[in-house]
Amino acid sequence: MLPHLADGEQIEVGPGDDAAVVRLPSERLVVTTDTLVDGYDFLPRTTAGRWIGHKAAVQNLADVAAMGARPVALVAALSAPVSTPASSFEQLTIGLAHRAEADGARIVGGDLGRAQQLTVTVTAVGALEEGRPAVLRSGARPGDVLAIGTDRLGRSAAGLALVLAGRVRVDESDPAHPGIQLEGIQDPAAADLVVWHNAPDPQLSLGWTAGRSAHAMMDLSDGLIRDGGRLAAASQVAIDLDEQALAPDVRALAPLAAELGADPWQWVLHGAEEHAMLAAFAPGRVPPGFRVIGRLRTSQAPGRAMTLGGRPIVGEGFDHFG
Amino acid sequence: MLPHLADGEQIEVGPGDDAAVVRLPSERLVVTTDTLVDGYDFLPRTTAGRWIGHKAAVQNLADVAAMGARPVALVAALSAPVSTPASSFEQLTIGLAHRAEADGARIVGGDLGRAQQLTVTVTAVGALEEGRPAVLRSGARPGDVLAIGTDRLGRSAAGLALVLAGRVRVDESDPAHPGIQLEGIQDPAAADLVVWHNAPDPQLSLGWTAGRSAHAMMDLSDGLIRDGGRLAAASQVAIDLDEQALAPDVRALAPLAAELGADPWQWVLHGAEEHAMLAAFAPGRVPPGFRVIGRLRTSQAPGRAMTLGGRPIVGEGFDHFG
Repeated sequence: MLPHLADGEQIEVGPGDDAAVVRLPSERLVVTTDTLVDGYDFLPRTTAGRWIGHKAAVQNLADVAAMGARPVALVAALSAPVSTPASSFEQLTIGLAHRAEADGARIVGGDLGRAQQLTVTVTAVGALEEGRPAVLRSGARPGDVLAIGTDRLGRSAAGLALVLAGRVRVDESDPAHPGIQLEGIQDPAAADLVVWHNAPDPQLSLGWTAGRSAHAMMDLSDGLIRDGGRLAAASQVAIDLDEQALAPDVRALAPLAAELGADPWQWVLHGAEEHAMLAAFAPGRVPPGFRVIGRLRTSQAPGRAMTLGGRPIVGEGFDHFG
Repeated sequence: MLPHLADGEQIEVGPGDDAAVVRLPSERLVVTTDTLVDGYDFLPRTTAGRWIGHKAAVQNLADVAAMGARPVALVAALSAPVSTPASSFEQLTIGLAHRAEADGARIVGGDLGRAQQLTVTVTAVGALEEGRPAVLRSGARPGDVLAIGTDRLGRSAAGLALVLAGRVRVDESDPAHPGIQLEGIQDPAAADLVVWHNAPDPQLSLGWTAGRSAHAMMDLSDGLIRDGGRLAAASQVAIDLDEQALAPDVRALAPLAAELGADPWQWVLHGAEEHAMLAAFAPGRVPPGFRVIGRLRTSQAPGRAMTLGGRPIVGEGFDHFG
């Protein structure tokens, strides 16, 4: 696996000793950790080693980015059954390293062990410059606009719906270029949705560039309603989502939703694992890369009050993991 | 779990946002990650939640210490079956936090998820001051002495032997004070050996105090022969272990070994999971807290040549995980 890890001038001691030594741009460390487990966070034969590594990187890189910081380094702990082929570890490492490197970060260490299920725990670190505040969830104000750093919401949820409907098989015969095979699906956009679910590729650099001017920011990991509710609760505001702003996202998913008998609004509002930056800005101060999808107002009562087109949202606060 | 985590002036943003923000003593980050998995790294009913957390902390803190750095913060990813009682997470968190705090470090974030087996992945971070070199495995020189930062080796292996012999039950009726029950064992020291195996408690501060003057250092995680061989290989030296220096360790374990029909030298030479600091110093420059157990000489050929009392060591290079 080591040959797949790029060097970097920030790495003083790389993998192979007791710990790695990395030079950060400042003393203010940003750190987060997240796990993917086979059978819970992904299903075998519907994804590929490269994509698992990519997704494990993204979900951690996104958390660092959402603080307004640029990721610098990652460490990865992989546990797997004894029967796991070495090539799986290799592909996973490549997927992890390539996605991290795309944002300028490096894999600097790890741990390999046994488990009944393939388990990937990544920890990502970055740093905040002196004098620059961390962008918290709690800084949004009534009158701010809510904006999202992606052109399309709901893609990961749509891909997951195809996986859960049993329509997806992955062809890993060329592990460097895994392919999606769909059964009985007409929508030509569907395969890309499964790829996005398996390996979401949000523009994370928005977090440490344009997003730094946000009053509040987080990454969209558990869906717009659930995560928006967290931002609203932390900032003690309520959110009015703009139905027209989200309509293009819904229209793009409508053909597939019709085939599966699903509601595309559910994917857009509740779909998890997008990892785009969700942020609150002063009105008129929304930077390029973000689009406005709602507005924040004073919260009359504690809680997660959210509306869509002026109406309360069905399923608000629904706990996907409860 | 959050109420069990101590605050600290180095914590700018603690658990609850996308990532934590921690002020390090310098920009030179030291980072390591390690995993414990139920059924592989510990056996249910022979250990306790507090001890699992304690051990997960120690094995990561030790890796930071072995670079000559003081640990500052930890993040922990816990995955577990749905049936896992909340109290298990709580006890594990307390064990993790207390051991980290004993060395001045804090738990600043984490992740909770599902898995078939309880899995604990901890990442520990520290920092090295400007101008202070990291203490690598590769800096030992012929003529150096080999020293270990513990009074006793082999305790964890002896405790494991009791576990594997089926003699151990744990009483967690008071989870804050788990107890060991041994079946058919006379040696009054035996219960403490199981506790040490479940929750090893090495003096890690030696790593970032006295150990900073070492030419090479690592923590003893896989046994004296295996880890000593790694240090020797990295430094391109051979190791002559001093039989007399290790004899007291063997004598202390001899009564239990006789009861179990085991060889106490195996525990002392090959026993894993001690996590004491193993270091090479210039002769006559061994600091308090370390005791000399061998000497380094020129390696005639590449490899892990090690001797004990002038004789080659049986089982040298044996891979416990192969």
